[in-house]
Parts: sequence; C-alpha cells; structure tokens
Amino acid sequence: MDLIKKHIVKPGESVKLKSIATEPDGPFDGKEDAREYVADTITKMQHLQYRLFVEGKQSLLIILQAPDAAGKDGLIRKTLGRMNPQGVRTYPFKVPTPIELSHDFLWRTHQCTPAAGQISIFNRSHYEDVLVVRVEDLVPKSIWSKRYEIINQFESLLCERGTRILKFYLHISAREQLERFKERLDYPEKHWKLNAGDYDVRDKMPKYHQAYEDVFEKCSTKRAPWFIIPADKKWYRDAAVAHIVHETMKEMDPQLPKVEADLDEIRALYEREAAEMGQDS
Amino acid sequence: MDLIKKHIVKPGESVKLKSIATEPDGPFDGKEDAREYVADTITKMQHLQYRLFVEGKQSLLIILQAPDAAGKDGLIRKTLGRMNPQGVRTYPFKVPTPIELSHDFLWRTHQCTPAAGQISIFNRSHYEDVLVVRVEDLVPKSIWSKRYEIINQFESLLCERGTRILKFYLHISAREQLERFKERLDYPEKHWKLNAGDYDVRDKMPKYHQAYEDVFEKCSTKRAPWFIIPADKKWYRDAAVAHIVHETMKEMDPQLPKVEADLDEIRALYEREAAEMGQDS
Repeated sequence: MDLIKKHIVKPGESVKLKSIATEPDGPFDGKEDAREYVADTITKMQHLQYRLFVEGKQSLLIILQAPDAAGKDGLIRKTLGRMNPQGVRTYPFKVPTPIELSHDFLWRTHQCTPAAGQISIFNRSHYEDVLVVRVEDLVPKSIWSKRYEIINQFESLLCERGTRILKFYLHISAREQLERFKERLDYPEKHWKLNAGDYDVRDKMPKYHQAYEDVFEKCSTKRAPWFIIPADKKWYRDAAVAHIVHETMKEMDPQLPKVEADLDEIRALYEREAAEMGQDS
Repeated sequence: MDLIKKHIVKPGESVKLKSIATEPDGPFDGKEDAREYVADTITKMQHLQYRLFVEGKQSLLIILQAPDAAGKDGLIRKTLGRMNPQGVRTYPFKVPTPIELSHDFLWRTHQCTPAAGQISIFNRSHYEDVLVVRVEDLVPKSIWSKRYEIINQFESLLCERGTRILKFYLHISAREQLERFKERLDYPEKHWKLNAGDYDVRDKMPKYHQAYEDVFEKCSTKRAPWFIIPADKKWYRDAAVAHIVHETMKEMDPQLPKVEADLDEIRALYEREAAEMGQDS
C-alpha cells in the first residue's frame, strides 16, 4: 500500500480538483477494515512519537486545509490528536485579530511551529492568506500573488531546522458536504453552528477550487508536499492520513539518546536502598 | 462516592503528608473496576468539554505536582489528555530559561492560563517557585516566603475571569517510587532517563514534604483547592482525578448558546439545494 504516492501532488504538478475523486478507491476492505487499520496505526504512531520526543532533534508540522464540514475536526479528534498530548499541540487559525493583522501574515504562524521533539497540527494555516484572502478579495492580487514564494521560503526555513511538513487537503464533494450540513439539523448539540449564510458552497466552491489548485501547483515541494485526500468517506480520510503520517514518522526514524549512565551502578544503588527500607519496616 | 470531600485540603487546614495514605481505601472494587470507571468518565468529560468549548465563557486549569515517578505523565497520557486536543493544552514547566528568569516568577505561567472555553493542564507549575526553589535554596527565604500570598492573588484573578482551578498532588511512598525507578531498568526505551543522581529521595523527601505542607496550608482556597491523591496505585490515581475533574465540570454546567438561526429556513434551503443537485446529475 503506497498512499503517499497515490495522493501526493508532485512539485509543479498541475491539478484539477474536479477530476480528482472524492470517494476512495482501495486499498481498504470497507469501513471496518479501515477503522482497524487506524487503531493499529495510532499505536505505532504513539511509539514513534515517544522516540521523537525523547530524541529532541526533529519535529513534525501537519497542516490541514479543507472546505467546511470536510472533517478537519473529526480527523484531529479521532486520529491525529490521539498521540500523547504532551508532545502535540493543535492550533486553529481563525479570522486574524487586530494585533495579528498589524504584523506580516506569517507572524502568527511562526509562533506555532513545533519545537524539536514536538508535533504541531494546524487547523487551517498561513494558506488562508492565499485562499480566503484571495476569494473574498481581502487584499489586492499584487500582494497575495507574492505570497506563494514567501510561503515556500518560510517552509524551507523550518525544514532546514529539522521540521518535516505534511500538508493535507480534505477533498469533499458538494453533495457530501450538503449531506453533512443537513445532518447537523438532526443533532441539537450542533444547532448553534447553523446559519443560513453558511451554505454558499455552490457559488464559491469553484473559486476556492481554483485558489487551491494554484496552491498545489506552486507550494507542493519535495520537503513540504501537499496531499489531496478523498474525504467523502470519513473512514478513508482517517486511514489515509494516518498512513501517510505514520510512514513519514518511520522515515524520520527518531533515535533514543545513548545511555550515559552506568546501569549496574544504578541497579546496585537501588538494591541497597531497597534493603535498607526492608530493615526500616 | 465523594472523592472531592475525601481528598480536598480545606482552606487553612494543616496537613502532615506522613499521616496521609498513599494506598487507596475504596470506593473502587480493584483495578478493573477503576479502569472501567475511568473509561466511562472520560466519555462524559468529553461531552462536557464540547459544551465548555462551545459555550466559550468558562475555562479550567488543572495543576499537577508530584515527586518523580509519581505518575503525572501517565495521568495526562491515559486520562486527562484524552479530551479533544483542540480544547486542551498541556504545559510542562521545567528549569526556567534565562528570559523567564529575567521576569517575575508568574510571567511564564500567566501565558499558559486557559482562554475561555479551554482547558490547560500544568505539568509542574508556579508552585515550583515555593518548592524546588525553597528546598534547593535558589532564592532567599525573604523572597519565596512572600510568594504564597502572591500566588493566591494571581489564582483569584483567574477565578474572577471564569477559570476553575484544580490542584492535584500525587502522593507516592518512597517504597513505591523506588519500585518504579527499578522498573525503568527493565525497559531499554527508558534507560536514557536514568542517572545515579536521580534517586536522592531518602535525603530530600522530608524537605519536599515540608515545603508541600506549607503550600497546602497556605494555598488551598475555596475557589482553587488542593487535592492530595493516593498515588501508589496508578488505577486509583487515574480514577480519583477523573472523578474530581468530571464532578467539577458538571458543576460548571456549561451551556450551549441559544440557536439564533431559523432552522426551518435552513432545512428548506438544504432541500432546495439537494433537489437542484439531483437535476444536475
């Protein structure tokens, strides 16, 4: 199974989202099979995360972008966020605050990049500055059009310091998205999310697709690739992302530090202590 | 079952750690029973966390202090850290950096307090500034002795803004601690942690106990209480802390926002969209 090869955008590759499937096509034998694969892979990721944390040299940055209801939150809650919370931080990037807007667009992002040994998960990211900003015409083209190169240089700076970057686009069909919006009507706990203005996807999805296609073509690099994940089936989305993250962590191959201590000396010390405690009681 | 009442330190109460049990005494019927209770309670905590997050008014700060090997990390990994990572951050407080030392002792803490809707877990905390700092004589008594009152005022500031504070001391016996140090010898993945200087508990535990006892007496307040949790059994430690956190979240009783949208209008909109999509295909 090589889902990396299957879903990666090659550097400079031109992508048409309309011609990319939102439904899975193998390799899992349905939902149950994929769920089992995810559970198993999470355990393996947890082991590798321990080594990454202890090694304290490399770090991992996972960027998630997607249309509404494509499942970034579910993916974090059920899969990526299952690693040890002491080594993982998730960062939501929402409408910038006045202070954030008074800085360059990478200022707030830079503060959230992972330290050595750590994993950061970005729920949305600096890519919004060439996505929503472009579609909603928040800054002129002369500004946003320069940002692709700035982003590539920024990500390359992180890679030089030992950060691996994985960027996932969750690719969902308009039909499935509508289904999920409709489902929210059935869950009173989700009603607060609803408003009639949300569902304007039929108007804006083509514009967003175009903006994403430019991102993929300009910013999928060898060291910080984009992956387009078919996301109409939640179980496939989770399994494919878990697979790619796990394979990447294996490749990073974090090493435990050499043991400096004299284990025999420590063993002898503990035995002595235990014997003394025995006498005390 | 009222483990809050059982383990809380009442405001001003004088505590002798030597006379407090490190072994559990009810109410769980052994390990399996406690583990089941924890699994069930985590699910309930996740539901309440969702409401806390959506409500966006109150927040929760959980402070963990303990001797080495008492299980702060295990407690986070297996219990507290199982809530949705998008609403929980854990913060380790290690030896202060030069920049941190160039500020007052609460400067680094304040940056990690939970925003409305969020939960922060402190792995160690500002209490180190009246614990290790005192035992190791890092600043004069004239300085650290003023900090109890400063801490109480700081925590009261947080409470005023809507933060609930729970402070847990994991109480482990010297014997169990030694057992756990010894166990590390059996796991090569943990050998990097070992050095012969670690195990100086027989010398220093009494001094730390004294420093903790002052903390409990001076800083267990009505709104930010300390709990002393028997921690020789990991399953009891996890169950007792889960219980107290869950009961507190129930008491906070976070409310979902009122639904402003007209659900019928939205339903009609979705139906129309779905019908149009049907015609398209």
